[in-house]
Amino acid sequence: MNEQNSGIFAAAEIGNAVDKASYDSAIDSLRVDLLNLQFDLKDQDFSLVILLAGDDRPGAIAAARILHDWMDERHIQTNVMFDDDGANGDKRPVLHRYWARLPRDGLISLFLGGWPTWAVHTALVRDWEELELDGVLDHMERFERELALDGTLLLKFWFHLPKEQHLKRLKDAEDNPDRYWHFEQRDWDILENYDKGLGLVEHMIRKTNSVHAPWTIVESSDERYRNLTMATQIARMLRARLEQKPATAAPERTSMSALPGQNLLEQIDLSLTVSEGEYPERFRQLQARLNELARAVEFANIASVIVFEGVDAAGKGGTIRRVSAAIPIQNVRVIPIAAPTEEERAHHYLWRFWRRLPAGGDMVIFDRSWYGRVLVERVEGFATPEQWGRAYEELNDFEALLDQSGMPVIKFWLQIDQEEQLRRFEARAQTPYKKYKLTDEDFRNREKWTHYQEAAHDMLARTSTSYAPWHALPANDKKYARLRTLEIVGDRLEAQLVANLGKNWRKQIPQGPAKQAKKARKSKKKG
Amino acid sequence: MNEQNSGIFAAAEIGNAVDKASYDSAIDSLRVDLLNLQFDLKDQDFSLVILLAGDDRPGAIAAARILHDWMDERHIQTNVMFDDDGANGDKRPVLHRYWARLPRDGLISLFLGGWPTWAVHTALVRDWEELELDGVLDHMERFERELALDGTLLLKFWFHLPKEQHLKRLKDAEDNPDRYWHFEQRDWDILENYDKGLGLVEHMIRKTNSVHAPWTIVESSDERYRNLTMATQIARMLRARLEQKPATAAPERTSMSALPGQNLLEQIDLSLTVSEGEYPERFRQLQARLNELARAVEFANIASVIVFEGVDAAGKGGTIRRVSAAIPIQNVRVIPIAAPTEEERAHHYLWRFWRRLPAGGDMVIFDRSWYGRVLVERVEGFATPEQWGRAYEELNDFEALLDQSGMPVIKFWLQIDQEEQLRRFEARAQTPYKKYKLTDEDFRNREKWTHYQEAAHDMLARTSTSYAPWHALPANDKKYARLRTLEIVGDRLEAQLVANLGKNWRKQIPQGPAKQAKKARKSKKKG
Repeated sequence: MNEQNSGIFAAAEIGNAVDKASYDSAIDSLRVDLLNLQFDLKDQDFSLVILLAGDDRPGAIAAARILHDWMDERHIQTNVMFDDDGANGDKRPVLHRYWARLPRDGLISLFLGGWPTWAVHTALVRDWEELELDGVLDHMERFERELALDGTLLLKFWFHLPKEQHLKRLKDAEDNPDRYWHFEQRDWDILENYDKGLGLVEHMIRKTNSVHAPWTIVESSDERYRNLTMATQIARMLRARLEQKPATAAPERTSMSALPGQNLLEQIDLSLTVSEGEYPERFRQLQARLNELARAVEFANIASVIVFEGVDAAGKGGTIRRVSAAIPIQNVRVIPIAAPTEEERAHHYLWRFWRRLPAGGDMVIFDRSWYGRVLVERVEGFATPEQWGRAYEELNDFEALLDQSGMPVIKFWLQIDQEEQLRRFEARAQTPYKKYKLTDEDFRNREKWTHYQEAAHDMLARTSTSYAPWHALPANDKKYARLRTLEIVGDRLEAQLVANLGKNWRKQIPQGPAKQAKKARKSKKKG
Repeated sequence: MNEQNSGIFAAAEIGNAVDKASYDSAIDSLRVDLLNLQFDLKDQDFSLVILLAGDDRPGAIAAARILHDWMDERHIQTNVMFDDDGANGDKRPVLHRYWARLPRDGLISLFLGGWPTWAVHTALVRDWEELELDGVLDHMERFERELALDGTLLLKFWFHLPKEQHLKRLKDAEDNPDRYWHFEQRDWDILENYDKGLGLVEHMIRKTNSVHAPWTIVESSDERYRNLTMATQIARMLRARLEQKPATAAPERTSMSALPGQNLLEQIDLSLTVSEGEYPERFRQLQARLNELARAVEFANIASVIVFEGVDAAGKGGTIRRVSAAIPIQNVRVIPIAAPTEEERAHHYLWRFWRRLPAGGDMVIFDRSWYGRVLVERVEGFATPEQWGRAYEELNDFEALLDQSGMPVIKFWLQIDQEEQLRRFEARAQTPYKKYKLTDEDFRNREKWTHYQEAAHDMLARTSTSYAPWHALPANDKKYARLRTLEIVGDRLEAQLVANLGKNWRKQIPQGPAKQAKKARKSKKKG
C-alpha cells in the first residue's frame, strides 16, 4: 500500500484481482441478471444513470464497452464527456449539458467522465481555490439530489490505478505505440498531475458521496476484477431499487396560503392605466430602445430568459408579441408551455426547460413556464404536496445557476381582476377567431380562482429572489402592462450590459446597419 | 412596369394593394378558416411546410409573424435560416439542416429563407457557373419531390419588391434609423446585388416550380395585400389537400426478384475461412491500422458512415464491436435500428437517419439501416410496393449526397446459410445471456428466407453504386468476416485520406500520443 494515498483509495491499491476461471463462471449468471434487470427497468417510471470516471480513463472506457456488450445496447445511451469544457461562447450553466442528456424513464445512460471529471479538471487547470471548487460541487450535489428525489437511480464509479501502475503502463505504451493506440494525450496529462489531481479527486468524492448518489471506488489494475466489481454493484443496486416498495405517501403539507388580506396580489394597483394619446409614441420609443439593446446583447454574447405567468386572459400572448417583435427574429424564440408530452413526462419536470435554454446572444421567452409546478400542478393535484412543496427551492436553485452564468432571468406575473377576466372571456366568445382560445376549462378555472391566487401568492413570496425578482404587473389596462414590460426588459438587459461592458457599453457596440449605410453613402458623395 | 424585370416578376410589380376596410372584413373569416384548417391538420398523417423567402427579407419576416399571430402558435415551429451557410466544419450535406427540422405529421413548420435562399445566396457569393447551380437545384427539387410523395404539403412563397421600392425604403431607413431598426445589413446587400441576384432567383424559381412544390410570387409593396395573398393561398391549398380523396392504390409492382440461380447472394463463397493461427496477429494489425486511420480522419475532418445489413445471426453485432473498438470512443457512435418510434413514424422514413449523420471527424455505424425500407418493410408489407419500389432511387440519391459532401458510405451485407443460422439460433437458446436475442420472430423469419433473399438480391443489384458499393461478405466463419470488414473500412478511409490530403497523408498528421511521449522523454534525457 502506497502511503501517499492512504486516504479513500487505500482499499483500491491492494492488488485486487480475479482469476479467469472464477470470472468466467461468475459472468455467465451476472450477464443474465443484468439483462433481466434491464428489461424490468424498461417498464418502470425511473431511469438509471451510470457515471464512469477515474484516473484510469482507458479503464472507464473499457468498462463502458463491457456494459454495452453485456446489456441490450438498444436501451443504453452513452455520453462521452471527458473534455467538455470547450463549449465556446455557450453561456448556459455547465450542468445544462448533463441535464439535456438525461435518459427517459426505463432507459440507461452512461456518462463517461461527466460532471465530476469536469469539476476536477477545471479546478486543476484554472487553479481554483477550495472555496470555488466547493461552490461547484455544491451545485452538483444538488443536481444529483434533485434527480434522486425524482426517482433516478444514480450510480457513480471511480476507476483507480496506483501511481506506479500508471507509470508502468505509459512506459509500455511508449515502447509499443502500435499496441497501445487506445491511449491518448490526456492519459499522460493525468500522470503529469497525478498527486495534485488525486488530492482534488479525493476532496470531490468526499463532498459528493451522498445517499442519493454514492460513489464506488474500483481498483482498476485487473480488468476482470474491475468488470466484475462494477457489474455486480450495478446489478445489486438496480435490483434493490426495483424491489423497493413505493415510499409511503409523504405527510400532507399544510397550504402556505396567506391570511386574508395578506395576499401579495391584492397589493397590485389594477387601476393603473396609460392614456390613448401617450401610448403610440412611448411604445415606439421603447421598442426601438429594446432593439438597440438586443443588438448590443448579441454583440456581448448575453443570453436571456423571460418568463410570463399570469391569470388566464391577462394578455400574456399580446404582451409577448410586443417584446419579441423588437428582437431580430433569428435571436428570439417564444416557447408556449402546455401539458407535457409523453416524452417530457418520462423525464424530470425541469428537463424540458433545461433543453430549451438560449445559447449566447439569444433570448427565449416562455409563455408559461417551470412555475406550472407550483401553479396548475399544485392546484389541479398533478404534483403531490411533497413535490410542489420541494419545488420552490428547486426553482430558486435553477434560476441561481442561470444568473451565475450571466443569463438574466426576467419574470412577469400579469394580474387582472375577475370582472375583467369575464369581460375578456365573453369578448373571446364573440370574436370568431378567438373562440378557440376559450375552453370549458377556462370557466372551470374561474371557480378555482381563490386556489390559483393563493398559489400565485406563495410563488411570488417564495421565488422572488434578488437575482430573479418577480414583476407583478396590473394588466386590466393591456397597454399599461405592455409598456411596463418593454421598459423592465430593457432596464434589465441594460444593467447586464453595464455589468459586462461597463457604463460606456454603447460606444463599444457596432452601429446599426442604417447608420452605417448612411455614413457609407455620405463618404461616397465626398470621395 | 419595370422593363428589366419583365419576367416572372411582372405580375408582382403592378402595385397590388388592398384598402383597410376590405382587409379588415376579409381577415376575420380568413383567420377562422386558418385556425379550423390547422386543427383539422392536427389529426392527419401529413405535415405542412411553408417556405417564406424573398428579396423583401423584412417582408418575409413580417409574414411569418402574421402567421404566428393568426394561427395557434403551439403547433407551429419556425426555422430562421437566412444565413445558414456558415456551418463551419460540418461535413454533412446542406440538405441535412432542412431534413432535421421537418415537422411531424399534423404540424406546421415555417422556413424563413431556407434552401432556395441558400442556393441563390451561395451561387452569388461563390460566383457559381449555371451548371453548378443547376446541380444544387436538382438535389433540392428531388428533396421536395420526396417530401411530397411522402405526403408533405409544401408551399413556397417569394416576396418581391421592385428595385425602386427597395431603394426608397433603404433611403428612408438611413434617414430614420431608429424607426427602421428591423432592417439589417443583409437588406443593403440585397439591393447592392439586386440585378444579378434577381436573375439567379428567376432561374431558381423556374427550375423548382414543380407540381410537388409550387411557388407563389407575392408582391410585397403593400403589407395588407401581402398578408392576404399569402394567407388565402395557404388556406386554399391546405383545404384542397384535406378534402382530397386518398389516392387509389398504385398498381402492384411485380417483384424484381431474380430468376432461379441468378441470385447475387448465391455467388458469395461461404466456404472462405481464416485459420486459427493466423487470426490474432492479423486482427491486431488491422485494428491498429484502423486506429491510425481514425486519428488521421479526425485530423482531416472526414466523417464516415458504415452500414451493416445481413441475415439474422450473421454476426453483425460482434463485427461492429470489433470496428468500433478501434475508433476513439468520442468519435464513434453505434446506432441500432429497430422498429421506428411513434415520433419517427410521424416523419418521412429517412428523417431518423438524416438526424443522426456524423459531424466532421466522426464515424456513425448503423446496425441495420435505411435499407429496412426494401428489406423488412418490403417483405413484411409495412411499405406498399409503390413505396419500396420508389425507395431504391431515393436511397441512391441520399447516399450520393453523402458522397458528394466527402462522407464515405461503406456498406456490408453479411451472409450465412440456413444451416449455419439454425446452428447459431440453437446455440443462442443454450447460452442464458444470449436467449434474449432469440424471439419467435426469428423462427418466423426463417420461413420467409426466400423472400428475404430475393429482397436482398434486389437491394444489392439496385443500390450498389460506384460511390457506395455493397460489400457482400461470407460470414459462416465469423473471423473471416471480421478481418475483411476491418480491411475494407481501412481501405476506404485511406482512399478518402489520399483524396483529401494526397498520397503522403501520413506525414501531415500529428504523431500518436505514445510516440510523442517517447520523443519527449528522450529529449528530456538528452537535455
